[in-house]
Amino acid sequence: MNARDLRCLAFEGDAATGSLRVLDQRLLPAIERWFECRSAGAVALAIRDMAVRGAPAIGIAAAYGVAIAVQEANRRGYPSIAVREAVEDTVNKLGATRPTAVNLFWALERCRTLAAQGADEASQFLELARAMHEDDAQGNRRIGETFASRIEDGMSLLTHCNAGALATGGYGTALAPIYVAHESGRRLHVYVDETRPRLQGARLTAWELSKVGVPFTLICDGMAASLMAKGKIQLAITGADRIAASGDVANKIGTYSVAVNAAHHQVPFHVAAPASTFDLSCPDGASIAIEERNPSEVTDWAGERTCPSGARVYNPSFDVTPARLVRSIVTERGEISPVHREQIAKVLGAPMDLAQPR
Amino acid sequence: MNARDLRCLAFEGDAATGSLRVLDQRLLPAIERWFECRSAGAVALAIRDMAVRGAPAIGIAAAYGVAIAVQEANRRGYPSIAVREAVEDTVNKLGATRPTAVNLFWALERCRTLAAQGADEASQFLELARAMHEDDAQGNRRIGETFASRIEDGMSLLTHCNAGALATGGYGTALAPIYVAHESGRRLHVYVDETRPRLQGARLTAWELSKVGVPFTLICDGMAASLMAKGKIQLAITGADRIAASGDVANKIGTYSVAVNAAHHQVPFHVAAPASTFDLSCPDGASIAIEERNPSEVTDWAGERTCPSGARVYNPSFDVTPARLVRSIVTERGEISPVHREQIAKVLGAPMDLAQPR
Repeated sequence: MNARDLRCLAFEGDAATGSLRVLDQRLLPAIERWFECRSAGAVALAIRDMAVRGAPAIGIAAAYGVAIAVQEANRRGYPSIAVREAVEDTVNKLGATRPTAVNLFWALERCRTLAAQGADEASQFLELARAMHEDDAQGNRRIGETFASRIEDGMSLLTHCNAGALATGGYGTALAPIYVAHESGRRLHVYVDETRPRLQGARLTAWELSKVGVPFTLICDGMAASLMAKGKIQLAITGADRIAASGDVANKIGTYSVAVNAAHHQVPFHVAAPASTFDLSCPDGASIAIEERNPSEVTDWAGERTCPSGARVYNPSFDVTPARLVRSIVTERGEISPVHREQIAKVLGAPMDLAQPR
Repeated sequence: MNARDLRCLAFEGDAATGSLRVLDQRLLPAIERWFECRSAGAVALAIRDMAVRGAPAIGIAAAYGVAIAVQEANRRGYPSIAVREAVEDTVNKLGATRPTAVNLFWALERCRTLAAQGADEASQFLELARAMHEDDAQGNRRIGETFASRIEDGMSLLTHCNAGALATGGYGTALAPIYVAHESGRRLHVYVDETRPRLQGARLTAWELSKVGVPFTLICDGMAASLMAKGKIQLAITGADRIAASGDVANKIGTYSVAVNAAHHQVPFHVAAPASTFDLSCPDGASIAIEERNPSEVTDWAGERTCPSGARVYNPSFDVTPARLVRSIVTERGEISPVHREQIAKVLGAPMDLAQPR
């Protein structure tokens, strides 16, 4: 399978009657099942329960969710003012699903702006969502092309969580350079952190790499350090859920440990993310809200409890890697290196406005 | 429950007819079931399949296994020379179960030496096994008393895997100071790495701490780094499966990542282990054999597969932490600090002979 054909979201049908099809990532790799979201509430649930996950994919799904809400409003014959209210309500509902992924808020802000500009037809919102979806896939392809040259023949890379096609509009961020290098015939090997507690590495990244035919080895998160000590990993790359103005990166819990280990072993640690992942209103990592999720993600597995009842659990979904540990951030607008405020502004093109397309 | 009463091995009955009772750690924390080993083969299986695990506990179980083999030889009326052959066979069988835990070979070597000295009665081997069991528990208590003063009131510690009563003859190594400090009324909090792939932290350490009433929080292995960054962990302590002459420490996979993160965050990283864990015939960590276990430990959970079929898996059971990252090694003979060859010899009392009691 070609990486280009790996998708996790598809809007089917026209603006008046279509719906969002979502690949249920909770069932992968065992079952490939798509389900249909015919309401914005269904999209919100899909995001909250992580049927769709990955910061860019969440943002795109949310934009489709707003289009579906407007579709419903149009069907009911709402006047323009009521459509705008429906958009506002939907934006609030979708924004409450997951607090850390900034692409979600970025996407919702664009929907709100469109409504504020007077748009009140589902077709207008669907066009915006489709454009965001396609822009993301194309931008990721550019991320892949920008960074692929850094992946030399015979190289072994480490990645954490899933920053692939399943996390985005297409291609992925961290996986995009791997796909591009693989397509160009370079031999490479990917060590995949299983990524506890939800195993997005084992379940999703391994699934994607299997599909595309990229050689990989699955490891537990605690094994990467010893592989680095043995010189078996030449480069580490992950995605991001939110990047502060300082360049501090919030990403899936465990990413920071990868970055610390990479620094200790002089393995370059890179982040790949679209410009929509930057939140310049966050001065630094300390001001990024970190979602804590249900302890059962840590304590339960397939109905079996793995620790004594009553055990206290800490289950943050993300951690923050300070900019100084990040060799570069690869975006669709170019590579940011060194990672600091000025270089970020230079590559992304400041001033950046959350509400505007970038 | 008092930590003193937590045990995982008990020889019941007399030398002529008794048997080894083993707490089946594979079933914890859900089920507390003891099973009986009436043959050395049963003990070997219990070790190989990790019903009993933890380097010191493995060594003690193996010594009981030899006593049971001699019991069988006595019952069959073997002459002295045949008893010695039975001991030799049993030592080889038990030694083939797990390659990394050096206490296993140390214990077996003591049994072999006893046989070479002419012992041929089960009671003699049972006496040796009981002495090793009791020595280990008492030694661990001394480890606890030696290091407990370092645990200040209000402190939070991190531990990885299980180096508690379940891994030893009693009290544990890394957990012994925690138990002693807790008994003396100090308030402390333990962050418990779940310890993938086999979850000894979640299943065993959390179980022990629950039993004894020590407050703890269970985390996934990738979360410790971010807790350190927030200043929430003041000290990290683990056990060891084998320590080389250089002071390099082989311990449960993931320990090295803890040590690297501890160094990065200026959190002191300590190792607690009895003298029997030192293998001075190993010059350094690179010469320690590292057991690789079945990929299914990583890929399967309660019958559910967590990654696509055909996925390649790397599953080393241990990693090596270089001496330079270890602030001290706490033994029953005193604390080794700084950790280097000369200091090890000084505290342990050189020359050390594998075959002699220490």
